[in-house]
Amino acid sequence: MKNEYVDIDTLKYLLYHVHQVEELFTKERFNEYDKTSIDIFIDSIKTFSDNSLFPFIKEMDEKPSYFKDGNINIHPQFENILKSAGEMGLVGSIYDFEDGGLQLPSIIFHAAYYIMEAANNHVPGYFGLTAGSANLILSFGNEKLKSTYVPKMLDLTWGGTMCLTEPQAGSSLSDVATIAIPTKEDHYLIKGQKIFISSGDHQFCNNFVHLVLARIKDAPSGIKGVSLFVVPKKRPGNNDELIDNNAIIAGEFEKMGQRGYCTTHIVFGDNNDCRGWLVGEANKGLSYMFQMMNEARIATGRMGAAIASAAYYSSLKYANERPQGRKLNSSGQKNTEEEQTLIINHPDIKRMLFNQKAIVEGSLSLILETAIYLDKEMTSSSKEEKEKYNLLLELLTPIAKTYPAEKGIQSTSDAIQILGGYGFCFDFMPQQYYRDIRIIALYEGTTGIQSLDLLGRKITMKNGKAVDLLAKEIMACIETANNFDELKPYAGVLLENLGLVKKVIETLMPHAQKGNFERYLADATIFMDFFGTVILGWQWLKIAVNAKKLLNSETKEQEDLFYTGKIHTMKFFFTYEMVKTKALAKTLMNEEELTTKVSNEIFN
Amino acid sequence: MKNEYVDIDTLKYLLYHVHQVEELFTKERFNEYDKTSIDIFIDSIKTFSDNSLFPFIKEMDEKPSYFKDGNINIHPQFENILKSAGEMGLVGSIYDFEDGGLQLPSIIFHAAYYIMEAANNHVPGYFGLTAGSANLILSFGNEKLKSTYVPKMLDLTWGGTMCLTEPQAGSSLSDVATIAIPTKEDHYLIKGQKIFISSGDHQFCNNFVHLVLARIKDAPSGIKGVSLFVVPKKRPGNNDELIDNNAIIAGEFEKMGQRGYCTTHIVFGDNNDCRGWLVGEANKGLSYMFQMMNEARIATGRMGAAIASAAYYSSLKYANERPQGRKLNSSGQKNTEEEQTLIINHPDIKRMLFNQKAIVEGSLSLILETAIYLDKEMTSSSKEEKEKYNLLLELLTPIAKTYPAEKGIQSTSDAIQILGGYGFCFDFMPQQYYRDIRIIALYEGTTGIQSLDLLGRKITMKNGKAVDLLAKEIMACIETANNFDELKPYAGVLLENLGLVKKVIETLMPHAQKGNFERYLADATIFMDFFGTVILGWQWLKIAVNAKKLLNSETKEQEDLFYTGKIHTMKFFFTYEMVKTKALAKTLMNEEELTTKVSNEIFN
Repeated sequence: MKNEYVDIDTLKYLLYHVHQVEELFTKERFNEYDKTSIDIFIDSIKTFSDNSLFPFIKEMDEKPSYFKDGNINIHPQFENILKSAGEMGLVGSIYDFEDGGLQLPSIIFHAAYYIMEAANNHVPGYFGLTAGSANLILSFGNEKLKSTYVPKMLDLTWGGTMCLTEPQAGSSLSDVATIAIPTKEDHYLIKGQKIFISSGDHQFCNNFVHLVLARIKDAPSGIKGVSLFVVPKKRPGNNDELIDNNAIIAGEFEKMGQRGYCTTHIVFGDNNDCRGWLVGEANKGLSYMFQMMNEARIATGRMGAAIASAAYYSSLKYANERPQGRKLNSSGQKNTEEEQTLIINHPDIKRMLFNQKAIVEGSLSLILETAIYLDKEMTSSSKEEKEKYNLLLELLTPIAKTYPAEKGIQSTSDAIQILGGYGFCFDFMPQQYYRDIRIIALYEGTTGIQSLDLLGRKITMKNGKAVDLLAKEIMACIETANNFDELKPYAGVLLENLGLVKKVIETLMPHAQKGNFERYLADATIFMDFFGTVILGWQWLKIAVNAKKLLNSETKEQEDLFYTGKIHTMKFFFTYEMVKTKALAKTLMNEEELTTKVSNEIFN
Repeated sequence: MKNEYVDIDTLKYLLYHVHQVEELFTKERFNEYDKTSIDIFIDSIKTFSDNSLFPFIKEMDEKPSYFKDGNINIHPQFENILKSAGEMGLVGSIYDFEDGGLQLPSIIFHAAYYIMEAANNHVPGYFGLTAGSANLILSFGNEKLKSTYVPKMLDLTWGGTMCLTEPQAGSSLSDVATIAIPTKEDHYLIKGQKIFISSGDHQFCNNFVHLVLARIKDAPSGIKGVSLFVVPKKRPGNNDELIDNNAIIAGEFEKMGQRGYCTTHIVFGDNNDCRGWLVGEANKGLSYMFQMMNEARIATGRMGAAIASAAYYSSLKYANERPQGRKLNSSGQKNTEEEQTLIINHPDIKRMLFNQKAIVEGSLSLILETAIYLDKEMTSSSKEEKEKYNLLLELLTPIAKTYPAEKGIQSTSDAIQILGGYGFCFDFMPQQYYRDIRIIALYEGTTGIQSLDLLGRKITMKNGKAVDLLAKEIMACIETANNFDELKPYAGVLLENLGLVKKVIETLMPHAQKGNFERYLADATIFMDFFGTVILGWQWLKIAVNAKKLLNSETKEQEDLFYTGKIHTMKFFFTYEMVKTKALAKTLMNEEELTTKVSNEIFN
């Protein structure tokens, strides 16, 4: 299945050439790995995806997860999938060897999950969330929690979830109302409700380990009073028997897309018999959870890029097979005696294919860039370097979550459009991808919330040091690009945009400095669009620079068209997308205050 | 139900003030009407929509139309709906009195259907298509066809459809392969297949009258050999008994949205016993059908605006009821002891509400503008005026179809986003509207095809006369706006954009003049986005000018906030949308030929 849903050649090109993964293998943590072993790992993931994931994506939409008699039922194929995923070590792929993990770099973990999600986005969350929650226990839990829960999670005998959202609070975690009442034993009694719990329950794990945010009785209000608990569905008794823990599945949210992936409503402690065990220290739950949230944000963006990839290849296949219409001759007429032409020959179809290619591959590159910063932070020996990569990671995380989500919606919409009326019908895949991807802009904090994080926290942290560090990275790319005449004009545009970023920030910052944070943040979502587009421009220039280098080298692994295709797509991105930043900057710098100084009644 | 799905005050403001509908009542054709009678008509449509349409929209999605045993079944509520629609004269609302119609202006017809579609977009197609196909028979059919078919269609005893698309041809009507074989009697024998037939069959009409494009045996190839036929499902016999006409319903296309509205597959003449009657002259079918297609394009755009309206009001209701988060104080902190605030108080939510309001009301205004050109063309006494309004109508039609479709997708996406995770769940409406509206950019020619029509035919017709006429209309609006200091800056921006339109056309035109039509049309879809945005800027300035006038007058019917709200939304449109035209113009004027001079293999 070459390029039915993902392009492995491009993935490897991004890993080895654009993001120089092999440098990581010189670090002690990763020195068990080399290019050969990583290739084998990636190819095994592709084979697993071809055989066990991609063939079931349509069925999982048609026969979605459902709630019955207090349990969630998911598609029967998950039994095989979860068994294989456990055996392949997909839960613990980035954990230390000593914790039973594969100790892979984060960038490789994301590459592997990207392939699986492109094959079937309804699947990997079931083990991705288990990976994240077990990692929280490993990072902050005591030895007893680790030994009780992690081994069974590693092989997916038990599943893991994270329980943040409550009906009355949504994303406002200050308002978490689930309560934890201390007891004389080592556990607390948990009482409350959580909603939108992905992978919250199903028939193929014996037990579920919920990582729950709750407020210890009499804790301070706001986020400073939120603690993290392990709350199993069934608690292990003294003889390892499993005892019902009064964590009741109350229902399933029926969704427009990603219907094979369950989204549950859990009620804890309805009978006052739900036990939870504190993870780490009291009242520090949110900072712990943010380790997982940060990983989950990159993972969510990755899933968006992956769905867009699948939609792109489904529409490309159609464009290569479907004859319709004819080329115009020099009199502007069509010769109807001729056969119809394949639709890929129409420039408007090519435009939509390039738009998809630019969004899909550019987003993937951004995800990998963000992921490798984590690896570099982890393996750097100098404190300064560690801080640098940490700041870059923090800065890029909300963008890596949002850009693939928002632009992925447009990209999958292009896939529908290429198929015309068929694209809207259940007989073809684009409509499903279009429904599936829409949740990506909502998961793990909506676009609005990511944008507040970007402009409100990340741009301002350490007096703007992260932006300065990023500007240096971008400048390095621009300087290399300037060595190639073909790339110079685009390097010039990126340089100009870097100046525009500075100008926008300088224009907005005084509002924050004067304490008018509402004004400062009012157009944070527009800022996200603006800044994200510049970041993607950087990624594309970086992709093109490396393509240019390889074109001239003897070690190239692909046909020339592969590399010229990257350069061509970079030009497309600059010509059709990067041009938009000036308008966004203009909106950001407007002085009208149209959304802050206006009565709510204006809408009624 | 005030503003649950539509704002009647805004609709009436657009009709009576912005588009000066009352001037039409001075014309002979419409002099039976006045403001009072039109108000009564509109209010009765609203009551019908409140009681019979809006309450069923969710159910029609959940229990969609389906195919069983050779028939299509639709929601039971349609029995009442169709009966009422027949009684209310909704099929013949624009027909002459003497044909049993209400002889209403086209702009009022569209206003009425807009209300009904905002209430329930799955419904009005069932009578809208009957209206269109009966009108074709009235316009081009002989007396026998008129008397046999039209009266039963008028009261919806029989339904009407239009059958253009075939599996192998899609939108390429040159390739229609359905064949019509002459007989010695007055009918032809029809043989072929048609797909994507909206409203193609259901249990609540006794019969269906299909208007079918087919090729008479030995007719020339291409569009010059296409004729139009009336092909009933059951043909009336000599004693008015209904005889099966071998027009078989072969299936239903299962769609992502608008699931209550059936989309069928019809096989004609499987047993060589399907009779069709020629409408008008042979080989002129496409020009006849285009009368209907042009109306249908405006109707499709209207439906897009209507769905976006319903989504807007559903998200506005939620924003006014849902508490979440808190305002930041001047230290950038939240006081978590305070109650949460309603989400409408967040600027990002207001931004999404304004975006929806701008798209919904601006699109509606464009639809009404386009519709009233038809009325003015029809009632003008001078040949020159008739031509003027005809050209303006032709020019605006593809934009009226496309702008509400494409921007409506973004607008309904904002509605989902306002609800957060709930917006993606079946318990709330935005996800349905989001699925429903996606078909609007596909119906009646995709956005790509509309864009080819705009740039390829409409911009160039009569040496650009339509654009010149439109520029005069826009200039008149700019001049009036310049009388108000508050509006002057926006009038200036619109003027600048008018210059940009000219510049873009002048830059592209040489490609067409040199016979390089592929190059000329390569970015037609970008041109649509560009030109459409300028047109909406004009509509919004026009809306604001009239609001400004009424604010200062003694005859205003609404609170001041109604009018200042229009002016504020105009400012929003210019600040957040009109700013984008320069980038689109830059893309249009680029010299890189990225989608025309490139190998298809680049994607593989």
